[in-house]
Amino acid sequence: MTDFPLKSLDAMSSFAGELPLADAAAIEAATNRQMSLTKPPGALGRLEDVAIFIAGWQGAEKPQIDHAQALVFAGNHGVCAQGVNPFPQEVTVQMVANFEAGGAAINQLCKAAGADLSVIPLDLDTPTGDITTGPAMSEAETLAAMARGWDAVDPNAQILCLGEMGIGNSTIAAALAAAAFGGSAAKWVGPGTGSDADGIARKTRAIDAALDRHAAKLGTAQALAALGGREQAAICGAVLAARAARIPVLLDGFICTAAVAPLHSADPRLLDHCLVAHASAEPGHAALVIGLGKAPLLDLGMRLGEGSGAALALGVVKAALACHNGMATFAEAGVSGG
Amino acid sequence: MTDFPLKSLDAMSSFAGELPLADAAAIEAATNRQMSLTKPPGALGRLEDVAIFIAGWQGAEKPQIDHAQALVFAGNHGVCAQGVNPFPQEVTVQMVANFEAGGAAINQLCKAAGADLSVIPLDLDTPTGDITTGPAMSEAETLAAMARGWDAVDPNAQILCLGEMGIGNSTIAAALAAAAFGGSAAKWVGPGTGSDADGIARKTRAIDAALDRHAAKLGTAQALAALGGREQAAICGAVLAARAARIPVLLDGFICTAAVAPLHSADPRLLDHCLVAHASAEPGHAALVIGLGKAPLLDLGMRLGEGSGAALALGVVKAALACHNGMATFAEAGVSGG
Repeated sequence: MTDFPLKSLDAMSSFAGELPLADAAAIEAATNRQMSLTKPPGALGRLEDVAIFIAGWQGAEKPQIDHAQALVFAGNHGVCAQGVNPFPQEVTVQMVANFEAGGAAINQLCKAAGADLSVIPLDLDTPTGDITTGPAMSEAETLAAMARGWDAVDPNAQILCLGEMGIGNSTIAAALAAAAFGGSAAKWVGPGTGSDADGIARKTRAIDAALDRHAAKLGTAQALAALGGREQAAICGAVLAARAARIPVLLDGFICTAAVAPLHSADPRLLDHCLVAHASAEPGHAALVIGLGKAPLLDLGMRLGEGSGAALALGVVKAALACHNGMATFAEAGVSGG
Repeated sequence: MTDFPLKSLDAMSSFAGELPLADAAAIEAATNRQMSLTKPPGALGRLEDVAIFIAGWQGAEKPQIDHAQALVFAGNHGVCAQGVNPFPQEVTVQMVANFEAGGAAINQLCKAAGADLSVIPLDLDTPTGDITTGPAMSEAETLAAMARGWDAVDPNAQILCLGEMGIGNSTIAAALAAAAFGGSAAKWVGPGTGSDADGIARKTRAIDAALDRHAAKLGTAQALAALGGREQAAICGAVLAARAARIPVLLDGFICTAAVAPLHSADPRLLDHCLVAHASAEPGHAALVIGLGKAPLLDLGMRLGEGSGAALALGVVKAALACHNGMATFAEAGVSGG
């Protein structure tokens, strides 16, 4: 990629107007192609919409996915001091090792879907600040993490799957969702990796305290520094890099879609090239995707993160393109009624 | 396969008690394995359930899908005389030619998911009887079509995807659904390949007339002969063959799941080895899958038939097994908290 261009978080808003749009001619050509294929119009449902969407961002009537990139960013979080997660914080680095050894769900799902996986640990020995007592990161730290995400994107990728790992980051996600879309912690909190009622109560108190402390940043891009984490900032940077290269993006579940909520606060158009891969079992996700104006492709009760839902949905996207590109038209097949 | 064993439709009920069950030891071993993998328990949602389900039917802690079979049965229907479909009936044979030439959606989706597709046209020159004026088939014709389905199943397949093609068969499906689960035509009818309001009104009248004429057969296996079609009977035969060989089955959408409703009427246990691949956009499908006691894997607004949803869901099933078989356990990966 080119160098990460943003010098401040406030610059996100004006950046939205500088980024490329989907190719209207490719969308029209792909839509016409869908109407000519040997099926009743609309009978492939969202597979048709997905094919047209990818056509628009790739700028091709027949888009291709020969090179899919998957990026998983990992971070640690000072808010773990508030007892928000039943797992110890060293699990983040242990899971990164598991990703690198090929033993995690995301490894199997990327292999199954044909995606090239890279795992990017972000200063795991230095957790971000505890959001109940101060900002998670300075603006400079946030921009540096965004640049890590930006730089990780392969400009030749034809689709990008994004995911994350970080003990404590369902608390961070709930805080970012509340910051972007309003409501108190109770609207957004959930069990995450498996918190019991006491654990959820601790998460709720921590999020409400953080929302109170950072009230001035709610609804703005600044929420990313105040309430986010390095993997959230890196995801935002990767989303912007993908957009600059007109690469469509599959966002994973609750934590990944909450990570991009500050981009939505800056300008919803920054997410026009993103699909939400699946509906997470985390209870706040339904309201979050409504807030983002997206509709998840899959709903399988998953709540693992790691990009697992994004990699799984990649198979559906590839199948959509296989139909779009490979089916005969009514004229080609000599079928009546087209 | 062995020879098709049923000599009458009424014999279906007692056949249920003779068929093999899922392997309880394999289910237990697969469940224990899922609990040991490097993820919070349950975090892969339905992917975990699917892996355990396939383990039970294959009788293996680590089930495999190297050989997936897809069967699409095609038939023609006398009820088309009632003007129930906007496409001419010759589209059935034209679409069979399109399947054989590799130009249909199911061809692309089978290729994407790695399934071996066979298309089996069933006496397309001889439509079944018009169900508004008499039975669709004699019992002997029905059993013969079931035997075609039974014989088509490869006993070495590790999973079976089922689908259908037949102009007019959304009318047949609505009639079979009503026969099994009650209610009048209005509860089950829909646009199918694209009927307008007048077309749907013709379908509704035809289905209600058929339900009235064949009232004595409703709720029984005999409904398959009275109201079904050859592709519906073949699907029933294939489901029974798969069960005899303990092959798990992915049923496609509205028409395919309605096709097996007579098996459910005979004995719901006949469908224990079947998953419903997706929720069809056809409005009657939601009530149908509730009647069958199943939950669709995908919900993408598809309504094409051909086995398209089953082939698409095969990718999800394969991904579930990739996670189940390939992930490291907590002990293997040295991750805390397992």
